[in-house]
Amino acid sequence: MNYLTQITMCNKSLNKLIGLSNKGGILLEIAEEIEKNKKIIMSQNLIDVKRCKKDEAFVDRLRMTDERFDDMIAGVKDIAAMEDVIGKILEQRYVSGIDLQKVSVPLGVVLVIYEARPNVTVEAFCLAFKSGNAVVLKGGSEALATNRAIIQLIKSVLAKYNLVDILVFIENRKTITELLKLNKLISVVIPRGGKELVEMVQKKSTVPVLSHADGIDHIYVDQSADLGMAVRAIVDAKTNRPATCNTVDTVLIHETIAEKLLSILREEMTKRGVTFNKIYGREFLSLQLAIKIVDSIDEAIVHVQKYGSKHTEGIIAEDSRVIDEYVRRVDAAAVMVNCSTRLHDGGVFGMGAEMGIATGKLHARGPVGLKELTTYKWVAYGNGQTRGEL
Amino acid sequence: MNYLTQITMCNKSLNKLIGLSNKGGILLEIAEEIEKNKKIIMSQNLIDVKRCKKDEAFVDRLRMTDERFDDMIAGVKDIAAMEDVIGKILEQRYVSGIDLQKVSVPLGVVLVIYEARPNVTVEAFCLAFKSGNAVVLKGGSEALATNRAIIQLIKSVLAKYNLVDILVFIENRKTITELLKLNKLISVVIPRGGKELVEMVQKKSTVPVLSHADGIDHIYVDQSADLGMAVRAIVDAKTNRPATCNTVDTVLIHETIAEKLLSILREEMTKRGVTFNKIYGREFLSLQLAIKIVDSIDEAIVHVQKYGSKHTEGIIAEDSRVIDEYVRRVDAAAVMVNCSTRLHDGGVFGMGAEMGIATGKLHARGPVGLKELTTYKWVAYGNGQTRGEL
Repeated sequence: MNYLTQITMCNKSLNKLIGLSNKGGILLEIAEEIEKNKKIIMSQNLIDVKRCKKDEAFVDRLRMTDERFDDMIAGVKDIAAMEDVIGKILEQRYVSGIDLQKVSVPLGVVLVIYEARPNVTVEAFCLAFKSGNAVVLKGGSEALATNRAIIQLIKSVLAKYNLVDILVFIENRKTITELLKLNKLISVVIPRGGKELVEMVQKKSTVPVLSHADGIDHIYVDQSADLGMAVRAIVDAKTNRPATCNTVDTVLIHETIAEKLLSILREEMTKRGVTFNKIYGREFLSLQLAIKIVDSIDEAIVHVQKYGSKHTEGIIAEDSRVIDEYVRRVDAAAVMVNCSTRLHDGGVFGMGAEMGIATGKLHARGPVGLKELTTYKWVAYGNGQTRGEL
Repeated sequence: MNYLTQITMCNKSLNKLIGLSNKGGILLEIAEEIEKNKKIIMSQNLIDVKRCKKDEAFVDRLRMTDERFDDMIAGVKDIAAMEDVIGKILEQRYVSGIDLQKVSVPLGVVLVIYEARPNVTVEAFCLAFKSGNAVVLKGGSEALATNRAIIQLIKSVLAKYNLVDILVFIENRKTITELLKLNKLISVVIPRGGKELVEMVQKKSTVPVLSHADGIDHIYVDQSADLGMAVRAIVDAKTNRPATCNTVDTVLIHETIAEKLLSILREEMTKRGVTFNKIYGREFLSLQLAIKIVDSIDEAIVHVQKYGSKHTEGIIAEDSRVIDEYVRRVDAAAVMVNCSTRLHDGGVFGMGAEMGIATGKLHARGPVGLKELTTYKWVAYGNGQTRGEL
C-alpha cells in the first residue's frame, strides 16, 4: 500500500479515536507487549548497529541499551498515567441565552520526522495517541530494523481495538518532501533532530511546523548577582548535558563583576574540560563557552536580541528592576531567572514527557507536551437564537 | 524607503511597544484625529470610487458612507476600551522551588493583506496595536487614496509617542510574494478577503497564516428537531447577510420530517428570494440554498465530513444523544446547536472585534480577536536551581 493511501486511511480513522476512553489502558498493553519482546527489539537493533557506517556519536544514539529500553518502557507507562487532555471545557460563557463552550479536541494527524533514535518511535507514538491524535512516523533509515520491530508490536495491540490505521510508518526517505505538502491530510509536522533536518522541514513544509532549529542560549550575569549562584547555574547550564538545546552557549558578564566571576568560573570550568572563546551566535553542542563582558544590561539585551534564537535565555541577578527589564525585553520561549537554562524542559515544567521544544510563536512555545498537541472547537448550545433578533 | 528597511525598523520598534500602558488612550486620540478629518477621508474616498473600474458590488465595498465612517469610529473606541491582553499570567506552578509562570506576550509583527475595504485599514491596525503588536498593512490598491489619508492620520498620532515605525503601509501589490517569505521579520499573516487571495497566501507563505478560504456551512435538521426553531434558524442563517462566510449553504434534512419541513421552508424562503438546488460543497455567498434528504445522522455527518470546510456547522435537534454525536464527530471551528450559523462571530462570542475567522487547527480556531493575536513566554523565577541537583 503506498503512503498516500495509508495517510488517507489514517485520516479517516480519526473517527475511531473520538471518544476512545481507554487510551491509557491501550498504552499499558503496548508497554507490556514491547517488554515481553525485548529480545526481538535488541536483536533487530544489533543488526542496525552493525550495518551503520556513521560516526561513533551517531551509532551511540542508534544503540538500544538495557537502560534505554527500561527508560522507554517507563516513559510509556508515565504517558499512559497522564490525565486526558481531550474534551476539557477551556472557556465557557453565556451569550444571549447561548451556552458557549470552548472545548479541547485533538489536532488530527501528527507527522513526526526524526533521526536514528529508536526510542523516539515509541515516545512520539504514545504522546500523539494519548492526546487523541493519529500519527505518521518517519524515522531515520539507519534504525529501520529496530523501528520495524517496534511498529509491529504496537500495531499488534492496536489491531485488537480496530485501530491499526491510526499509525503509519514511512520507510522511504524520498517521501519526506511529498509528506510536507499534504496539508489537507496532516495537521502538524514535528521535526526532531539536528538543525539541517529542522531547517529543511521549515523551508519545504506547507503543513504547520512545531520545532526549533537552533538553541543559541545566553546567561547574563548582572552586577547585582549572587556570584556563587551564578557559578553553580552556569556550570550546570554548560556541563550537565552539553549536546542539548538548552545548554548555555554564551555568558554575558557585567564589567563590574567580570574579573571576580571569571576567576572562579575559569577554575570550575577548566577542571570540567570547558574551553572559553569569543564566538557569538553559535550553538556549540559541546564544552565550548563564549564569554562577553558588557557595560550594562542594555548591552546584554541587545546582544541577546542580535544573536539569540528565542529558545532559552537566562539571567542571574538580585536587583528586581534588572530582572523585570530583562524578562520584559528578551523574546524567547523561556526566560530562566536565577536558575540553570537546562531546566527549560517539559518534564521539569510539570508537563510530562515532551515531543520537543518549539521556538515559533504560533500555537505552542517551549515544551510541546500533550496539551500542545490539542486544539479546540467552539460549541454553542442555543434554543433558537438568530443573528437578526440579537 | 523600501519595504524591507521599513519592516526591519518595524521589527526593531517592538521594544517600544513592550510595557506601553496607554494603548487605549492612544487609540482614542486616533479616533478623534480621524473623526476631525472626516472630510479629507471622504474626499479621498470619492477619488478612489471615481477611478474604480470594477463591478458595482466591488465599488460598494470600497465606498465610505457616513454610516460606515461612524461604525469605524465606534469600532476604534470599542477596541480602545477592551481589557489589555498582554502580561497576563495564563498558568502558574511551583516546581522544585521555582515560580514558573506562563505569561501572555504579543506575537510581534502582524501582516494583514486585505481587499478594497478602507475600514479594514483602521480596524486591523487597532486590533494589532491593542494586543501589543506592530503591523504591516497591504490593502487593495483601489482604495489607495483613502488608505493613504487614513494611514497619515494614524501616523500623526503615533509620531507624538515616537511610535511611527510600528505601522508599515505597503502600496505596491508586487511586494506581496516577497512579504510572505519574511518569516524572520513577520510572526503571522492574516489574509482578509476572497477565496483566491486567501489560497494564494496559504500556498506561497512561509510565514504562519491565520485564515479561512471557504465557509461551506451545513445545518442538519434531525427528526427530533423543533420544526419552528429549524425554520427560524435556517431563514436567519441563509438570509441575514448572504455574502458572509457563516451563511448556511446546505441544509441536510432527516427523511422522516423532510416533507413537512420543506413545505414550510419553501414558502418562507421563496418570499425572501432564496432558490433551492442540489449543488453540494460550494460556498454560494448568495441566496442559493442546497437541500439534501438524509436517512440518518450518520449520513448527515459523512456528508459534512466530505463537503464541509471546517468553518461553521449547525444542528437542529432535541435528542441529546444525537446532538452529542454530531458535536463530537463534526470537525469545525464552531458547531452551532439549535441556533443560527450566523452567530459564529467574535462579537457575538463576547471576544470583541475580530480580525477574521480561522479554520486552521494551529494557534487559533474560529474568531481571531485580541487574545488570538498573542502568544506566551515561560518565565521561571528560581533561586539557584540546577538540573544536576533536581
